[in-house]
Amino acid sequence: MAFDPATLRFDDRGLLPVIAQEEGTGEVLMLAWMNAEAVARTLETGRVTYWSRSRASFWVKGETSGHVQELVDLRVDCDRDCLLVMVRQVGPACHTNRKSCFYTAVREGDEVELMAPME
Amino acid sequence: MAFDPATLRFDDRGLLPVIAQEEGTGEVLMLAWMNAEAVARTLETGRVTYWSRSRASFWVKGETSGHVQELVDLRVDCDRDCLLVMVRQVGPACHTNRKSCFYTAVREGDEVELMAPME
Repeated sequence: MAFDPATLRFDDRGLLPVIAQEEGTGEVLMLAWMNAEAVARTLETGRVTYWSRSRASFWVKGETSGHVQELVDLRVDCDRDCLLVMVRQVGPACHTNRKSCFYTAVREGDEVELMAPME
Repeated sequence: MAFDPATLRFDDRGLLPVIAQEEGTGEVLMLAWMNAEAVARTLETGRVTYWSRSRASFWVKGETSGHVQELVDLRVDCDRDCLLVMVRQVGPACHTNRKSCFYTAVREGDEVELMAPME
């Protein structure tokens, strides 16, 4: 069946959450948001392109930092209201210079940092 | 530093997205939502507990199906507006009886089913 981004279920802002997972390691790198046009651009260009809620503009991941995400596979969930992108990540995914945004764990009631910024 | 669910950044509905990833395999199973109380209950009980937007009630994952998620680790992202839970998943995570909700890939413009329902 042909895929049409318009058949996805976006929220009242026209967005849906997108999980980025690193191919190979399986590490979950980040979660960000796309609108229908960002989904289409990601598929067309092979460069993962989000919608930045704070800047209210398209955000080609890594466009300024060089930390791009090359699309390997795009998956739709059962409710069609969330995406999973499998990516090849250049450099750190997180703006704190860490590999993943999920570098803080909650263990026995305390926050524990799992990961240092990359050199 | 002591963790307080109230320090997370919830949206205007009081919710944040939560990614469930299977320990060991690294497979991303599903995305659902929690409010502050669901986060607290998940940590207290070790049973992953979401907020069901459709039913507007707490949803102890697997409470009726038996397909529970045992919490292994809970991670907070850099913006504190998204969580990653590492889980031990009993049975399928998806209500379609598939291991993961992300069983549809988009390849060369078509939707391709990657996974059959479990027996």
